[in-house]
Amino acid sequence: MPVGTLASVKGVPQDLLEDLGVQILLGNTYHLYLRPGLETVRGMGGLHGFMSWDRAILTDSGGFQVFSLNELRKVNEEGVTFRSHLDGSSHLFSPESAMEAQIGLGADIIMAFDECTEFPAERARVRGSMELTLRWAKRSKNHFEEHKHRVPWEKPSSAQHSAVSSQLASSAEAAGSSDDESSRIADGGVRATQGLELRSPGRPGAAVPTRTGTLPAAGATQSLFGIVQGGMDLELRRESAERTVEIGFPGYAIGGLSVGEPRDVTREIVESTLQYLPADQPRYLMGVGTPEEIAAYAALGVDMMDCVLPTRAARHGLLFTSVGKISIKQARYANDAGALDPACGCRVCTRYSRAYLRHLYASNEVLAQVLNTVHNLSFYLDTMRRVRHSIRLGEGTGFLSGVSSQPKP
Amino acid sequence: MPVGTLASVKGVPQDLLEDLGVQILLGNTYHLYLRPGLETVRGMGGLHGFMSWDRAILTDSGGFQVFSLNELRKVNEEGVTFRSHLDGSSHLFSPESAMEAQIGLGADIIMAFDECTEFPAERARVRGSMELTLRWAKRSKNHFEEHKHRVPWEKPSSAQHSAVSSQLASSAEAAGSSDDESSRIADGGVRATQGLELRSPGRPGAAVPTRTGTLPAAGATQSLFGIVQGGMDLELRRESAERTVEIGFPGYAIGGLSVGEPRDVTREIVESTLQYLPADQPRYLMGVGTPEEIAAYAALGVDMMDCVLPTRAARHGLLFTSVGKISIKQARYANDAGALDPACGCRVCTRYSRAYLRHLYASNEVLAQVLNTVHNLSFYLDTMRRVRHSIRLGEGTGFLSGVSSQPKP
Repeated sequence: MPVGTLASVKGVPQDLLEDLGVQILLGNTYHLYLRPGLETVRGMGGLHGFMSWDRAILTDSGGFQVFSLNELRKVNEEGVTFRSHLDGSSHLFSPESAMEAQIGLGADIIMAFDECTEFPAERARVRGSMELTLRWAKRSKNHFEEHKHRVPWEKPSSAQHSAVSSQLASSAEAAGSSDDESSRIADGGVRATQGLELRSPGRPGAAVPTRTGTLPAAGATQSLFGIVQGGMDLELRRESAERTVEIGFPGYAIGGLSVGEPRDVTREIVESTLQYLPADQPRYLMGVGTPEEIAAYAALGVDMMDCVLPTRAARHGLLFTSVGKISIKQARYANDAGALDPACGCRVCTRYSRAYLRHLYASNEVLAQVLNTVHNLSFYLDTMRRVRHSIRLGEGTGFLSGVSSQPKP
Repeated sequence: MPVGTLASVKGVPQDLLEDLGVQILLGNTYHLYLRPGLETVRGMGGLHGFMSWDRAILTDSGGFQVFSLNELRKVNEEGVTFRSHLDGSSHLFSPESAMEAQIGLGADIIMAFDECTEFPAERARVRGSMELTLRWAKRSKNHFEEHKHRVPWEKPSSAQHSAVSSQLASSAEAAGSSDDESSRIADGGVRATQGLELRSPGRPGAAVPTRTGTLPAAGATQSLFGIVQGGMDLELRRESAERTVEIGFPGYAIGGLSVGEPRDVTREIVESTLQYLPADQPRYLMGVGTPEEIAAYAALGVDMMDCVLPTRAARHGLLFTSVGKISIKQARYANDAGALDPACGCRVCTRYSRAYLRHLYASNEVLAQVLNTVHNLSFYLDTMRRVRHSIRLGEGTGFLSGVSSQPKP
């Protein structure tokens, strides 16, 4: 899932995202809550209407941004008090208010409010944090069940959106019934968005573009996913997973990773935790990773991932290619007439030279960000297409030796 | 002509410019000479190859940027010595070096090296400056005639480009033979790009995209246009025009305007000067203007114009619409679900709401610049399409009462 923090994948218009084959975007509740604010988004029919995006959207709970952007946050049983990074104003996120916010934003998949445990942390601290997240998970579910009918999909200015969750669940289940073990892996994500390939052709003078896709069943609502915490402790992760599954959600995320721990620890936690999460429901690894990592985690059984890496790296001129990572700012590319990635069919690689991309970056041209982001997203989406293809063919992910983000020798 | 200063219309990929119907772009010799430098662009087959743009390009001579960006410039008979605004390094632009630069950049239309006279200026100063520009015009033409075969269009990595100038001249001439006076106006620009509607579909792994359009006749070269100066003095403008025509160019520009003078003075100078320039050759008014102005100048007989206004205003959130100019940053648009311009069919107005555009701008999202620029260019290009259509129908430009960049009442 590409990250569209403020209802925009930085620099890339929505129709280009559609052309790239983006099936689902991630929005950040914390940022959208501060700007433009919930009432604005709700009034436009939720994020789908506000940003004119018919395909699937997932919002995080806000917990991770509060954790990473606010030094002065205060956590208690009720929730987290924090100050806006924009104007210093004071706010409270609780399980209930995070659900309110996410119902108002109207994404297809929303996340339980959790505490992201810092790294490193003492075992007692990790256990306490995990227990808090479990209590918040119950409160999140309770509040969601009571208020989920308030999702603004019924607004006349916005079409109703498919209930992605039920598709995710049923497709994962269908895949799970296959004889071939590998066909289950990461396939939920593929099928989840079938039927979501809607377009917004729009019409001149339309208030908000008219959507023409299939409508969800009447009364369709969002899907609330639970989040597993437990720090870097395999036993606490197991307990967190089992007790979160006991509460019961249509999908589960592994949170609290990519917070500074070594990568082999991340992998160990993921591999261990996955076995305690139902294989017939979507399993979502938050905040990961490099191209090699997303392929490797898909091979382990992860169905969904999000990461700012492709878009953030693009803004710093770091480009992922079939021959390794390229820093386009380097002078060696100043007169390089070759395509950025000769093996890539994206609109950047088929049209522009490395010399031109280097010039745009070196000259601080905004087009550098646009083109670099389009290419990196294309590379990531191609990687996931190859993962899915291998799974369908029952080939595992042996092709992955060809995926590399190491610099060229 | 949209302005693509550094071989990029800021924020807009080339394929979107093609979709908008952009037929010709302007590049700035001064900026490209400093970054990425002539040898890089020449080595990629000129600007067409470097920026992967098959349609027409015009480069200015560098004189105006030296005038406007360099407080410490020194002018003498040889040329202008100036310091780079980037690193303070010292450079000389002369008629000969400006021709070398523009031949290396390989645009279809290039401009004689001139001195842009400051405003206000004493009559003696204006006359001296005008005489200098005339001497430089002769030197520009001489150097161009001797070296024009060096245009890098023959490079194997770049397709050859149509000789726009001959088309401009012949179409203007054909239009001139029409009984209907108004059919001559601004039509050169329309027909000039017939046969230039090439696309760069590219192919994966191509070094530089392969062009598939019609090739120009063997030995085709660039077209060098002369520039009329003479300050705000009608007599000097007449003399400058007549003596520039005497030197002989395939097209003529009116320079030295939009330098701080009142708008009615600009208009008076343009109207007066046009009558001394051949109506059967392209007449180009440099650095103009608002939507009303470009329509009004086309009605006077101007065939070509360039201006940073649509792109620069877009970056400041100022948007041209059929109901007047809109400052999208204003809070009044925060919850406005309407299209930016209900009468506009561009990909921005048919998809996004004012509320979304306002949010992007207020949040400093790069997508704001992309979408705002696409819309403003669309509005300008639509304005010129209406101008051409009116001319073809012999209707004059009476529709222009509908073109307005005034704020809504």
